[in-house]
Amino acid sequence: MTHTTSPLTTDLYELNMVQAYLDRGEDKEAVFEFFVRRLPARRGFLLAAGLDDALDYLETLRFSAAEIDWLKSTGRFRANLLDYLAGFRFTGDVHAIPEGTVCFANEPLLRITAPLPQAQLVETRLINILNFQTLIASKAARMVLAAPGKVLADFGLRTAHGAEAGLYSARASYLAGFAGAANVAAGERYGLPIVGTMAHSFVQVHADETTAFENFARARPEGVILLIDTYDTEAGARKVVELAPKLKKDGIAIRGVRIDSGDLAAGARKVRRILDDGALSDVIILVSGGVDEDVLLGMMNSGAPIDGFGIGVSLATSIDAPAFDCAYKLQEYAGRPKRKLSEGKVTWPGRKQVWRSYDTDGRMRGDVLTIDGDKQPGEALVVPAMRAGKRIAPAPTLAQIRERAAGDLARLPQALRRLESGYDYPVTIADALQALAEEASRGR
Amino acid sequence: MTHTTSPLTTDLYELNMVQAYLDRGEDKEAVFEFFVRRLPARRGFLLAAGLDDALDYLETLRFSAAEIDWLKSTGRFRANLLDYLAGFRFTGDVHAIPEGTVCFANEPLLRITAPLPQAQLVETRLINILNFQTLIASKAARMVLAAPGKVLADFGLRTAHGAEAGLYSARASYLAGFAGAANVAAGERYGLPIVGTMAHSFVQVHADETTAFENFARARPEGVILLIDTYDTEAGARKVVELAPKLKKDGIAIRGVRIDSGDLAAGARKVRRILDDGALSDVIILVSGGVDEDVLLGMMNSGAPIDGFGIGVSLATSIDAPAFDCAYKLQEYAGRPKRKLSEGKVTWPGRKQVWRSYDTDGRMRGDVLTIDGDKQPGEALVVPAMRAGKRIAPAPTLAQIRERAAGDLARLPQALRRLESGYDYPVTIADALQALAEEASRGR
Repeated sequence: MTHTTSPLTTDLYELNMVQAYLDRGEDKEAVFEFFVRRLPARRGFLLAAGLDDALDYLETLRFSAAEIDWLKSTGRFRANLLDYLAGFRFTGDVHAIPEGTVCFANEPLLRITAPLPQAQLVETRLINILNFQTLIASKAARMVLAAPGKVLADFGLRTAHGAEAGLYSARASYLAGFAGAANVAAGERYGLPIVGTMAHSFVQVHADETTAFENFARARPEGVILLIDTYDTEAGARKVVELAPKLKKDGIAIRGVRIDSGDLAAGARKVRRILDDGALSDVIILVSGGVDEDVLLGMMNSGAPIDGFGIGVSLATSIDAPAFDCAYKLQEYAGRPKRKLSEGKVTWPGRKQVWRSYDTDGRMRGDVLTIDGDKQPGEALVVPAMRAGKRIAPAPTLAQIRERAAGDLARLPQALRRLESGYDYPVTIADALQALAEEASRGR
Repeated sequence: MTHTTSPLTTDLYELNMVQAYLDRGEDKEAVFEFFVRRLPARRGFLLAAGLDDALDYLETLRFSAAEIDWLKSTGRFRANLLDYLAGFRFTGDVHAIPEGTVCFANEPLLRITAPLPQAQLVETRLINILNFQTLIASKAARMVLAAPGKVLADFGLRTAHGAEAGLYSARASYLAGFAGAANVAAGERYGLPIVGTMAHSFVQVHADETTAFENFARARPEGVILLIDTYDTEAGARKVVELAPKLKKDGIAIRGVRIDSGDLAAGARKVRRILDDGALSDVIILVSGGVDEDVLLGMMNSGAPIDGFGIGVSLATSIDAPAFDCAYKLQEYAGRPKRKLSEGKVTWPGRKQVWRSYDTDGRMRGDVLTIDGDKQPGEALVVPAMRAGKRIAPAPTLAQIRERAAGDLARLPQALRRLESGYDYPVTIADALQALAEEASRGR
């Protein structure tokens, strides 16, 4: 059960730049920050996620002899780079906004302070981890807000973009408030609850649906969920009603049914009536297929008798916004602030901190983005996460991160709880940061 | 350099169903097919991809003792399932439409013929691999068609959905006609060309841009590509002109420049003029940032002097359609055809074959979807890929797959070469399949 990813998971240009830095001994302290430049359409906030896997990456980044040999075989790199990589250990510091924190564009989710070649080498993979997990946590948070009190489960592994996307989606949605995921590997790796029912094929291999239901229930007597829409949803529900007393005699309770096609709300209503009339009012109804936050909100508004939702592609691909416009930018080098001035991509220089104020009712009022050390009222969000290559203990557990997310989502301004935000949460640039930005623009 | 993915990369319900099958000795021959139900908006065709990784998965799927122990520790599974998994070997047959083949909705990209528990167990991961690689190859093909003769490179690893998405995106875009990828791991794993330039941070750590350019060129004297938009693109281009003679004396040629911000077409025009006036007409211009197939087409139509494009997020996330509506469906069990009748999700039963006809000019004319063995005019697309768990040798190389894709893209009907297709390529259902479907609907 090794969880390592190839250290070659990086863009070639990182290696090219490190080669050039090593050639000239350019290894003074560099500060990079990862942030989202702007929020996608309809999105009012981010939910920070991915830090734990990012720190894991930094702590365990090693190049094997075989990988060094392969790099050598490309003929692109010289001995000084190959030696450097062979002995690579990340020795820098990391500051970050903790996972499960609500945050906004331009706020540094992660800051790396390290010798320049180290800080540059890790760019691609850090973005790869943080962009995606924050993307999914932010998407999942919308679903959690749209369907309070409902059981939501990540069914997205099959259409997630590869195995790791499935893992990360399960983790990020769980920390945002999902109940669990279908992905077994996510249960093994992250210890999160795994959930699952049955497929249409199971019904189809049996001569009739009732036999399929019975065989499934006897094989998995705890938490039996039956998929009832393979042929005709209402007929399926009636078969469940007929079967239930027989199973009950053997001590097997049917926990729920799942509907995966057709008009889910209408189907749930009909099925609820059939179950209730059949003395199965404690059997829950789960639905899946095409569910996203808008569907959830519609279901909630219509009062459809649905207890839980399996959510796949819309979650695991963040379908309306499959990536953030994000960046990992050099903010300081050798003690001097740095600022990129490219057209349309100007950034805020220096090591930054975010101070958050709350209203008297506990809701978030506004943030101030400023330079590290410029104390402002409120709560400082950017905190140390790693010092000299070692994670600061104790790292929060996934359960603690999930609690933090629940707390932060409860503190969202009312306008940000809606799917159509239309509200720009105030992130003010402090005078000190403004002054540094002007200095950096002049001084570069 | 191990490339294995956890065998737990599966949905819990697969294990639940296998448990039920084992309990009752339900292990007769099952036939499942993977297909795309319908094409996303604006898409006229698919480009098949992912088969090689799918076969690799089937050939190497093993559960370690640690994984079996973990499964046992969940308390969800009985000894018969744990023993079965501990000794698991896939022993079935695979038929597939070869990678690099243009294909359409409802056509079976892959068919699994195996004892039921095996065929069910591999569902989730097969979809996970085939959906994503076919998604990216199909997206990349649109870009290749929009910009004939241009160098396209996959810069998408950072915003790809995890490490494996970056790998698969590099492979799938390369087979569709991209020149290469920035992802170093993709070079190591698939032997495809890796490409890379430099980041803005490299310019920023230097006291001035010219020094940055010179240091980079000396560190990487072959194929020097300089990023010129960190502060002011035109000024950057003039510095390249000034620097070139000095480098030339030392035998270093500047191969190209890259622009990553602003109006890329307008910037390229100004830069082209500066380079040409500076006797650098052989220096190529590459651009990146926000490029997709529509941008490519616009650039081509405007005649912008751009030689190559780095394409990131739009490619690696297939941003307009981040997943297909796809399925892995039971089509036959124990010799009987099977058909799902769920509302809106009716499928074509049985083992299927696709026969393709061509016009006299070599372009694709239409496909016939029928049952295996019902010979039709034209070329049969579904061919054997694995027999009794062993891949049929020789498997096509990535270069051969890329050639096949180029050939198929050249044979597309003219209407399917446009970004707005508006043309439904004819896929006819043969009488034999129609008859089988009716039989399966009655007979289930």
